[in-house]
Amino acid sequence: MHLWKLLRRLPTIIVKPTTSTIATTNIIPIPKMSTPTASQPKVAQPKWYKPSPKNDAATNSHVLKLYNTLTRTKEPFIPQSGTKQVSWYSCGPTVYDASHMGHARNYVSIDINRRIMENYFGYDINFVQNVTDIDDKIIIRARQNYLFEQYVKENSTAIDISYIKTALSEYITKNLKLEGGDEFQSWLSSIDLEKEKELNPKLPMHIKAIETALLALTSIPKNPEEINNFYNNVKDVLVPLLDEQLGSTLNDPELFRKLPAFWERQYDKDMAKLNVMPPSITTRVSEYIPEIIVFVEKIIANGYAYATSDGSVYFDTIKFDSASNHDYAKCQPWNKGQLDLIEDAEGSLSNFTNSNKKSKNDFALWKASKPGEPQWESPWGTGRPGWHIECSVMASDVHGQSMDIHSGGIDLAFPHHDNELAQSEAKFDNCQWVNYFLHTGHLHIEGQKMSKSLKNFITIEEALQKYSTRQLRLAFASVQWNNQLDFKESLINEVKSLETTFNNFFKNIRALNHDYISQLSHDNNAPISKKLTNLERDLLKNFHEAQDKVHVSFCDNLSTPQVLKTLSDLITLSNTYISNVGTNLKIEPLLGICKYVTKILDILGFPARSDQLGWVNVSSVETQESGSIEDVAMPYVKCLSTFRDQIRSLAISGADVKEFLKLTDNVRDQDLLNLNVALDDRNGQSALIKFLTTDEKNEMLKLNEEKLVKEQAKAQRKLEQERLKKQKEEERREKARVSPLEMFKTDAYSAWDEQGLPTKDKDGNDVTKSMTKKLKKQWDQQNKLHQEYFG
Amino acid sequence: MHLWKLLRRLPTIIVKPTTSTIATTNIIPIPKMSTPTASQPKVAQPKWYKPSPKNDAATNSHVLKLYNTLTRTKEPFIPQSGTKQVSWYSCGPTVYDASHMGHARNYVSIDINRRIMENYFGYDINFVQNVTDIDDKIIIRARQNYLFEQYVKENSTAIDISYIKTALSEYITKNLKLEGGDEFQSWLSSIDLEKEKELNPKLPMHIKAIETALLALTSIPKNPEEINNFYNNVKDVLVPLLDEQLGSTLNDPELFRKLPAFWERQYDKDMAKLNVMPPSITTRVSEYIPEIIVFVEKIIANGYAYATSDGSVYFDTIKFDSASNHDYAKCQPWNKGQLDLIEDAEGSLSNFTNSNKKSKNDFALWKASKPGEPQWESPWGTGRPGWHIECSVMASDVHGQSMDIHSGGIDLAFPHHDNELAQSEAKFDNCQWVNYFLHTGHLHIEGQKMSKSLKNFITIEEALQKYSTRQLRLAFASVQWNNQLDFKESLINEVKSLETTFNNFFKNIRALNHDYISQLSHDNNAPISKKLTNLERDLLKNFHEAQDKVHVSFCDNLSTPQVLKTLSDLITLSNTYISNVGTNLKIEPLLGICKYVTKILDILGFPARSDQLGWVNVSSVETQESGSIEDVAMPYVKCLSTFRDQIRSLAISGADVKEFLKLTDNVRDQDLLNLNVALDDRNGQSALIKFLTTDEKNEMLKLNEEKLVKEQAKAQRKLEQERLKKQKEEERREKARVSPLEMFKTDAYSAWDEQGLPTKDKDGNDVTKSMTKKLKKQWDQQNKLHQEYFG
Repeated sequence: MHLWKLLRRLPTIIVKPTTSTIATTNIIPIPKMSTPTASQPKVAQPKWYKPSPKNDAATNSHVLKLYNTLTRTKEPFIPQSGTKQVSWYSCGPTVYDASHMGHARNYVSIDINRRIMENYFGYDINFVQNVTDIDDKIIIRARQNYLFEQYVKENSTAIDISYIKTALSEYITKNLKLEGGDEFQSWLSSIDLEKEKELNPKLPMHIKAIETALLALTSIPKNPEEINNFYNNVKDVLVPLLDEQLGSTLNDPELFRKLPAFWERQYDKDMAKLNVMPPSITTRVSEYIPEIIVFVEKIIANGYAYATSDGSVYFDTIKFDSASNHDYAKCQPWNKGQLDLIEDAEGSLSNFTNSNKKSKNDFALWKASKPGEPQWESPWGTGRPGWHIECSVMASDVHGQSMDIHSGGIDLAFPHHDNELAQSEAKFDNCQWVNYFLHTGHLHIEGQKMSKSLKNFITIEEALQKYSTRQLRLAFASVQWNNQLDFKESLINEVKSLETTFNNFFKNIRALNHDYISQLSHDNNAPISKKLTNLERDLLKNFHEAQDKVHVSFCDNLSTPQVLKTLSDLITLSNTYISNVGTNLKIEPLLGICKYVTKILDILGFPARSDQLGWVNVSSVETQESGSIEDVAMPYVKCLSTFRDQIRSLAISGADVKEFLKLTDNVRDQDLLNLNVALDDRNGQSALIKFLTTDEKNEMLKLNEEKLVKEQAKAQRKLEQERLKKQKEEERREKARVSPLEMFKTDAYSAWDEQGLPTKDKDGNDVTKSMTKKLKKQWDQQNKLHQEYFG
Repeated sequence: MHLWKLLRRLPTIIVKPTTSTIATTNIIPIPKMSTPTASQPKVAQPKWYKPSPKNDAATNSHVLKLYNTLTRTKEPFIPQSGTKQVSWYSCGPTVYDASHMGHARNYVSIDINRRIMENYFGYDINFVQNVTDIDDKIIIRARQNYLFEQYVKENSTAIDISYIKTALSEYITKNLKLEGGDEFQSWLSSIDLEKEKELNPKLPMHIKAIETALLALTSIPKNPEEINNFYNNVKDVLVPLLDEQLGSTLNDPELFRKLPAFWERQYDKDMAKLNVMPPSITTRVSEYIPEIIVFVEKIIANGYAYATSDGSVYFDTIKFDSASNHDYAKCQPWNKGQLDLIEDAEGSLSNFTNSNKKSKNDFALWKASKPGEPQWESPWGTGRPGWHIECSVMASDVHGQSMDIHSGGIDLAFPHHDNELAQSEAKFDNCQWVNYFLHTGHLHIEGQKMSKSLKNFITIEEALQKYSTRQLRLAFASVQWNNQLDFKESLINEVKSLETTFNNFFKNIRALNHDYISQLSHDNNAPISKKLTNLERDLLKNFHEAQDKVHVSFCDNLSTPQVLKTLSDLITLSNTYISNVGTNLKIEPLLGICKYVTKILDILGFPARSDQLGWVNVSSVETQESGSIEDVAMPYVKCLSTFRDQIRSLAISGADVKEFLKLTDNVRDQDLLNLNVALDDRNGQSALIKFLTTDEKNEMLKLNEEKLVKEQAKAQRKLEQERLKKQKEEERREKARVSPLEMFKTDAYSAWDEQGLPTKDKDGNDVTKSMTKKLKKQWDQQNKLHQEYFG
């Protein structure tokens, strides 16, 4: 290239006044000072105008706001990290029974919120959730279950009717304040049940327990099955007496661990079925006792708690509330002093009349353990933690002295969460432990509070027999997370109708897309027009407006009902377009809308198909793939089956165990490896299964082959050695054949003695003495050898 | 509930001075004026402190910046909508040949950018991309292909050698400036090829075409196949002559549509293979002729273009550049006047010497069509659009008078994009049509520009035979999108190593997770500890720092190389944790990290498994589903593995073969049946494998149970029979005890012979003959029985 040409390629300095003052609607000039190109004088470019948004991006509606219990207002969300990091503590389950619809509502709603924050707003959330595995309810339930099981075992052949009657009588006296069983029927017919229920919501439960026991006592069971049924029918009235009489004798910690461990696993399974994401970190109370003790000590040291003579520690609510930098009951200050709420939260194992609390508002941080309760050593004697302190300690352990978000059901706001706040702010002596407190609303069933006594108590397992995971999640997403949700027939019908709307739309778009692709695949077809007409332009305008609406709705306290409504409306508009456009349908805008709807639903926890054209059903992921399960699984099953066949025939033929081991090696090193599966045998543990890429498999096969070659070489060497040994042996035996009497009968000598030892050499001379000695030695050796084989 | 209780439940107005001035590190008090609760006087809550981020969220590093060609600086990205809506126009393919690695680099890099903007930053992008299906290259290629096909068809039996020789001679004359074919060899041996190549980069291509033709002419082809090969070998030298002589006779528009339609489909297929998302809207030049004419008319009306006498329209660069509100060549002003670039962009069908342009810088908006070119009616006569105007018109048609982002390869910056800007700003008479111009960097192959003449030209199809889609995307993501990318051996090796790092990590975490789950499934196991130790705390700290780093990197001009580095480092830290922690491994932090890495890779276009524990391969349908193969096959493999474990430990302990058989029964009747698999054992054949529906399985389980019941009943009967037999035997033996000599010694008789046979009855009468015979028979029987046991 010529030099002048190269020169021309160099950047030219353009000197031109930037006098332009003409600005279009969207573009305003910025001051010269901040012209970005100012710092690059060598390559002066024309002026660039910093974009000026049509709507101010900082407008109210485009900022994420969360409804904060601490202000009862939608507050702009500001993470304290200043980055995308968000710390979140979620009140987890107390694991002593099956999770129910109330739990489902809370955990699914919180899961939806978490997913929107993570996958729509892009926050990196450290989501900590606890498992309460030490609690009055757990202790009682574990103890009673154990005592009942023992009692049934020990009384499996004969029933001690009088003991059961005593238990029933005590149950009636305690729960209904009647003198005994006889009064029950007349009392029941005399009362206004509806009115009494208002005073005592547990009444129906007690009545049911008593009536069931009374019925059981009318006939005497005979066979083991009848006896078993009998005990189950009287269980509710029997266990309180057993617990009263024997509960205090129990102290095996294992007894208090088995029950919560079981229900924790059940909870995890329920959540998995509901497609609730597992927490980033799970904290268990039972693993936090030392930290709890230290935490309580610090509160005492700060002056906000006191130990009592019985070895308990209480929080000093009056002292705390009167401190200038603290407030007690930040969530629900109007509930301060509500004894029913406070006592309920303290747990049924607490003794309120006997406690040495300074104020009725004070609550236990540490409880002296009574007989029949699990216990840990502490500076205040053996005891166990209070309920509220658990969450304060575990949340602080991970998140430190303050966090962005704390969530839980609204029924936990007072006193549980208010006590958590008080404890933590007392411990850290700061004024705000939680920045945003999110409380999910109550769940009602057909307008009524869900309760076992009302017979409208639905476990998650039961709900999932009637509704799919998707339907439940749609139901929860259809109601604002912090509002009360009434799980009623009309809601379910709305949800099913919405589900059908989505399903039909997805199916339709996929069919239209298939149609489009199959038209394309005819190579000689003219290209299908993609030019937008006004019909598509209108549709796209609606699409973009819907996207803006979805954004505004998510910003507005994560309003999933608004989002679902917007998506549903967008589908209606798309369906209208499809029916209006006829054969001139353009696929691109529809695919765009379909993928967008799928994406938003995926964010809400409805998993997307891999082509983004619709959702898949969580509960039917298994059946969805059932067509291919056989194809995919067959080679592995075949491998298993063959292995089994071989084991079987070996066993039938009574083979040596070594043969079995050889087979287990083969199935690992050959059959499974050829299926890209590696097994790592581990001592005392099951083998670790790894699926390999083809490259990794080949590497592994190579290594195995090298190993085999080495082993074969070793075997070869061994064989060779054996052959040589045998050959030597043969030679030795051959040599041994010659009798010592004959061994020197050669031309080298001319005379021998009777043993065949030469006396004269071939020339007739006497054999020398030294020679004779030498020959005799040879003779002896041959004699020995000959004797060995032919002696 | 009593009234006073209800009353107490009502919110209390709390009057308490908010005098607190104590602020912790992260929390600062806000002025009373903006206390959020101020508007709700009825339910006064304690003061809430608006969070004050540790780092200012508005810091430089947390704002998305894009490298803007218009300022050659990373500018903060501000969408003009003020919402999440972003308008984007991407320069699409000119469809006349196979797409190559240069295209792959541009479209995959832009796809990655688009995905990050959409799925990480949450923008709703309206992504418009054109298909240039009217263009000089397409016209020439389509015409030549057609003429060649026709010529071959018409000359399929005999070759007109002299015509071919003429074509070759003209080719040499035109491209090498030699008089004819004879001079070629001597010329070739006389020149310095390397030096000449610098002056004329297409030289090697011409030499190859000539040499191939010369070789073809050395032998006369006979059969149809040879003739076909011959024509293919002389095609390059033949078609220019055919085009010269016949090109101008062609005018069927269909002829110019078939070729681009074919290559458009190929382009779409290539992009699908590369997992490049299709555009929101595709615009084809051929569908935009009327809009182009209107657009050009407006530019003329605004005074920035002029028609020439031959029926073409040119853009008036001098007029435009001298206008106070306009600048020409905003992207690369230093290239103004670069005739080689300008002429190259005008297309090989242009006649530069004959044009009536006012300035050399001016470029065609509308070209008068010459014979052999497609043509449309216009106010300036029949013609066709210029290259640059196409993009201005299509982009403006969808996005209007300005857009957020325009992207394309850096080689298009001048004059194509600069002309686009000038045209559009002239049409709308505004000062900024594009706010952010993103240009992807050049692609080099082993340090050299890719070109057909350098023999380093790689089509996408060829590349995908050697590398997977994932490897190519990883290679592109490993280099900053706006930097030059050298596709060389060392880069590929780095990419493969990185791929292995990810693969091993994902596999490892899945294996550890399976292991964890299978430990859990033993119901009686104690819960596995989840308590964090310092090892996990350190790991989590590193994890959260990595998340921040990823965010900062994405903000920093979508820096995927930095992101990949951060993920790779995070994996190294995780692997170190795994090897350090031993058996106390905590699965939760690892799952969190694995899901995060998967999520970020998914955002970059590496699709995630449905469990979010790793990626799936897109390179083929088969491997695309490989993620689910593992899930589907795992239970079966697990079953096999467990069975094998059991056989192994049995063999090691030297158990009886019966135990092995029992295991083979169990694996058939329980484990596999629970997985809906039935095995039918067959004599001398391997067992038959059947996949069952759940109904069939239940039927089978029922049958097995019935079989068991029957077998148990049979065993019971057998036992009973044996008992009876034994009893009978016992009775028989008992009966046998009596000696025949004694058997009749009863009161019924009074005299007996020596054998003990009665001779007289109790009354002293002789025993009758018939009676004696009967008694003798009994005697014989007893004698036999007695002899049997006691003889």
